[in-house]
Amino acid sequence: MTDPPPEDTWVVGLDLGGTGSRAAASPGPGRPHIRVEGPPLHVVDGRSDAPDVVRGLCQDLMRELDAAQAGAGTPRIAAAAVGLRGMMAMDRAGRLDPYALHDVLADSLGTERTAVSTDAVTAHLGALGGRGGAVLVVGTGAVGVAVDEYARWYLADGLGYLVGDQGSGGWIGREGLAAANKARDGREDGASQVLLRASERHFGRQRHGITLDSTPDALSLLAGFARSVLAAARAGDPTSVAIRAAAARGLADTLRAALSHPGVEPRVATTGKLITKVPELRALVMSHLTDVRPDVEIVDAAGEPLDGALVLARRLLETPEGVPSNRPFLSVRMGTPDLAAEPFETATVARAPRRRKKLPDGDPVTLRAGSGR
Amino acid sequence: MTDPPPEDTWVVGLDLGGTGSRAAASPGPGRPHIRVEGPPLHVVDGRSDAPDVVRGLCQDLMRELDAAQAGAGTPRIAAAAVGLRGMMAMDRAGRLDPYALHDVLADSLGTERTAVSTDAVTAHLGALGGRGGAVLVVGTGAVGVAVDEYARWYLADGLGYLVGDQGSGGWIGREGLAAANKARDGREDGASQVLLRASERHFGRQRHGITLDSTPDALSLLAGFARSVLAAARAGDPTSVAIRAAAARGLADTLRAALSHPGVEPRVATTGKLITKVPELRALVMSHLTDVRPDVEIVDAAGEPLDGALVLARRLLETPEGVPSNRPFLSVRMGTPDLAAEPFETATVARAPRRRKKLPDGDPVTLRAGSGR
Repeated sequence: MTDPPPEDTWVVGLDLGGTGSRAAASPGPGRPHIRVEGPPLHVVDGRSDAPDVVRGLCQDLMRELDAAQAGAGTPRIAAAAVGLRGMMAMDRAGRLDPYALHDVLADSLGTERTAVSTDAVTAHLGALGGRGGAVLVVGTGAVGVAVDEYARWYLADGLGYLVGDQGSGGWIGREGLAAANKARDGREDGASQVLLRASERHFGRQRHGITLDSTPDALSLLAGFARSVLAAARAGDPTSVAIRAAAARGLADTLRAALSHPGVEPRVATTGKLITKVPELRALVMSHLTDVRPDVEIVDAAGEPLDGALVLARRLLETPEGVPSNRPFLSVRMGTPDLAAEPFETATVARAPRRRKKLPDGDPVTLRAGSGR
Repeated sequence: MTDPPPEDTWVVGLDLGGTGSRAAASPGPGRPHIRVEGPPLHVVDGRSDAPDVVRGLCQDLMRELDAAQAGAGTPRIAAAAVGLRGMMAMDRAGRLDPYALHDVLADSLGTERTAVSTDAVTAHLGALGGRGGAVLVVGTGAVGVAVDEYARWYLADGLGYLVGDQGSGGWIGREGLAAANKARDGREDGASQVLLRASERHFGRQRHGITLDSTPDALSLLAGFARSVLAAARAGDPTSVAIRAAAARGLADTLRAALSHPGVEPRVATTGKLITKVPELRALVMSHLTDVRPDVEIVDAAGEPLDGALVLARRLLETPEGVPSNRPFLSVRMGTPDLAAEPFETATVARAPRRRKKLPDGDPVTLRAGSGR
């Protein structure tokens, strides 16, 4: 764990999302990466095409790596990790067997050390550069993610646009479009003429109001409208200001909930397209958070989810004892494929820290040292 | 128009919904109906099965009518009207040609006078027994519907559970389930432990929270949970009380918006499963409404949407000049099938009374008499 890695010990990270995918090979921290991009995830005939996307990215990456080595031979890949958008939901819906991805990584890259995780985990590892704490991810969806001193992961929210993801792009767009519809009807409570005009620019004029119930890409349409709502808030539209305020309250609450698990270091960062591009939303969230958690250190995001996947892969190589499987968030295989027979969802990972020893807040070092507290 | 209808002049009404369908034949007001029931509407291979449901109901009804006449001959059907759940959305999505239903009614019943309408119109005609005013329909969805002295129809909301239908069963269930998810995560803003326990009874224990994004019947699941939220509100759970209060405010606003169109008589009723079965929700809505519209007469619902379809059919027979087509809400055919060539959605029916003469409030009789005001 303290030995430096040998030179030319490459690891591979992959990040698979709804708008695109990417992979990188790294010979070690601070040295240049090889990077390739690929298509977004799709569901085809009721199955996720994640295995195909992973295989394609790995092949492209190895080709690039070969070319970059200029005939000096393809380097050995010592470990690989992939973060996937929607992994848990796809697993539940029977659209993806996360275990199959271990096989694809192992076959494509010739490594026995592989990790498959939800992209919340890789977003955390990227944003905090592998340090402890909690990360708030806000893009189309919203999730708070934290890790404790035993490398146990916790999520807050991330439950989708219908009954969760408060403050996300999808949520803000939904609230904004509802306010536009109210103005069109002549309703008054929560209506916005400004958002009505914005919705007409965004969706075209709709004589009878906008409904998205039967629209397959409703979520991306809503998330696209969020930028208009936040622009209207900056311009002072009261309804839009109220939507932004409710979003910030909800996001701060999600981050606080993730942070409040025992043994999570008091450090936070944010990542994701929406909150990164709307600094006033981040400022509101952090203001709410520091009201209740003045002890927390707020840091800038160190990197992207792809960087987090590389952090995870390098840990498989350098500190494998510090990367336990933590299903359904994270599945680790260290050359022991017989584990694949175990159902992915059965591990006892509690979302809330129930039914295990209550750990005191604020002294993770003492606990880690096994002082008996 | 003032002549009494001849005896044995039967009309037929049909009501097609998401949980079932029904049809009735009536020989005249106050005389016993013949009634049959049928299956709910479905979308099969991208098309609504409404034409098949209508044909089946008509065949069953005529058989019943035959049997009831005991060999005295099948009575002539003089007019027929059908109200459909989701007609406008199905038309927009290319799942249903509303004109095809005129043909099915004409062929199955042997009548030239047919009407095809959204079920909001038949719900209104049933609840107010054909009188003027506005009706609030609250079940899985929520819509305010009003008619002016020129028999022009206006809707408020009814825009679906994603960006509309505030206060409906789907909306209340969605808010309630979001509050349950918050409690599970350890979030605090808008969380409810009471609703978390209720959601576990309703949906079973979900270790990582409930998400419905990939669930085909999400809306009916949400609407089913609304009853639990309203029960928790009755028991005093503060989050549930707040959800019920926001629902009532939104519903009152929807009803007020429908009522505020010029020429709509100041009379209201409510109908639909949710508001009918939850009297305290109706009381809250009416309290908000009378705060802003103390002039409004509140009446009990006179009947169901099926009764409204019979009112509509009888009007086709007795006062056809009073039933203009008012697309996309209502399509009327009086033995002139060449109209069918006209696209259903092109008529200029404004949701808000823009671009036409502003009519003064409160004096519909004078206006109807053509006083030149």
